[in-house]
Amino acid sequence: MSRVLLTGASGFIGRHLATPLLDAGHEVHAVSSRGEPRHADGVVWHRADLTDALAAEALVREIAAEGMIHLAWYVEHGKYWQAPENLIWVEATLRLLRGFAAAGGRRAVIAGTCAEYEWSQDVYDEQESPLQPATLYGVAKHATRLVAERFAENAGVALAWARIFMPYGPGEPSARLLPSVIRSLLVGEDAPVSHGEQVRDFMYVEDVARAFAAIYESSVRGAINVGTGRGHALRELVELAAQAAGRPELVRWGALSAREGEPMRLLADVSRLEREVGFAPRVELREGVERTVASWTVRS
Amino acid sequence: MSRVLLTGASGFIGRHLATPLLDAGHEVHAVSSRGEPRHADGVVWHRADLTDALAAEALVREIAAEGMIHLAWYVEHGKYWQAPENLIWVEATLRLLRGFAAAGGRRAVIAGTCAEYEWSQDVYDEQESPLQPATLYGVAKHATRLVAERFAENAGVALAWARIFMPYGPGEPSARLLPSVIRSLLVGEDAPVSHGEQVRDFMYVEDVARAFAAIYESSVRGAINVGTGRGHALRELVELAAQAAGRPELVRWGALSAREGEPMRLLADVSRLEREVGFAPRVELREGVERTVASWTVRS
Repeated sequence: MSRVLLTGASGFIGRHLATPLLDAGHEVHAVSSRGEPRHADGVVWHRADLTDALAAEALVREIAAEGMIHLAWYVEHGKYWQAPENLIWVEATLRLLRGFAAAGGRRAVIAGTCAEYEWSQDVYDEQESPLQPATLYGVAKHATRLVAERFAENAGVALAWARIFMPYGPGEPSARLLPSVIRSLLVGEDAPVSHGEQVRDFMYVEDVARAFAAIYESSVRGAINVGTGRGHALRELVELAAQAAGRPELVRWGALSAREGEPMRLLADVSRLEREVGFAPRVELREGVERTVASWTVRS
Repeated sequence: MSRVLLTGASGFIGRHLATPLLDAGHEVHAVSSRGEPRHADGVVWHRADLTDALAAEALVREIAAEGMIHLAWYVEHGKYWQAPENLIWVEATLRLLRGFAAAGGRRAVIAGTCAEYEWSQDVYDEQESPLQPATLYGVAKHATRLVAERFAENAGVALAWARIFMPYGPGEPSARLLPSVIRSLLVGEDAPVSHGEQVRDFMYVEDVARAFAAIYESSVRGAINVGTGRGHALRELVELAAQAAGRPELVRWGALSAREGEPMRLLADVSRLEREVGFAPRVELREGVERTVASWTVRS
């Protein structure tokens, strides 16, 4: 049992993390920039803007958690790859880690990204793959890890850096590809997509959250990929969504161009996650997409 | 002519930078954490703690400089290699650069360090030498550069990253090796030193400052070494100081152990500084050491 500070707690991945942490017997202190402070379903909620230096410092001092899972970052769709907000989150993350360590923190898992890798390979592994990020977002995460790891070593914090590949599922920000396709299909509109041949390591969001919880419990330090290790073409994801929505004829293949600099294949080597954490994902692609479509059907 | 924001302006190197900048016709806005705001010798002085987010943001907005030379960092002797303050200065530097760009800044020179290199070679060059810093200080500077360079590119700021090797001269913090040797000699006490065989790229502090001013005027972007390209053993430096102080018999060779992990040779490849900036140092080692000893004699 430990007291765990969870940032980005109302975000796409964060909202699924309280459950596995509570199941493991932890006391969860969830931080969100939205909503009101409250105590609900066993979670103590704090409202704080972590980019506000004084507020963030006061918060970590007050909570004095032994553990931290830090997911919060600037992720506005279409903007976050090159936005100056990435610098704000480098600053906020280092400040948070300093404050956490000073308040007695001992175990931290921070969200990294597959965008830290140089996208010149097919399968990326934590030890061997070159780190030469193409985007400011990737550089910012990479640079944060460099400093955070060295600092954590000095400060006696066991830090794992969990590189997320391609999460999908209910609650994904609505402007992103899969939600926007599903929403179009559900209201009977054309759904423009690119050629769809890009192969990605799609992972159902609850599995991503469970992987973070499992990494937190483990003694893993340093970079660790969070993915399934299996590749699916974007086309397959979209076709499953179109079937589930019952409107496959509305998908407009090739109507969008693929993002510039986007690699054809981007898969995680998950040996570390499997062997050192003992984690395996539970939700297959078909089931995950069906649940995602269902989540939008309910809302529509 | 441009308005230049100079941080660390009352520091070891910074105090020598106003002169060459004024000589080049710039309007110098000097920031220091010490002293009072004033207008002196053509320089507008501002007092600010750049690690205070709100104060720093207000300051860069108010000055709205086109140029910036950023020297301020945590450099307390014996502590700065591994101190958590390095994180505070990563944060402060990124915040400063963001604010500077947002206020219309276009040219920046930021102080880097030879400690960004992996100390496995003799001569370090900006393009080829591996960047695998051994210390938190080196990692923090390295990571800051990665983010700053990518951000600057996006933001239209021409950023040069000037890697300082081994500055020495009047005004060096008194706990560091050369000043402490000189002070001992001048009061007739034993001066303990290590074996003194370490070869370093010593550069007189006014030359370092002039190199920064010259880099600022140039169109160089990215990493650039600031050194002389010539190596001298630490023993030579100390012997020159002992001669100038008239007390060579007080030097205790081998009384201190060399710092752990310290390389035997650490020299700058200065091709870039010579060719692209057209800079050459003016002050030879003997003259520089004599001036340094004289500066302490006057103070004693």
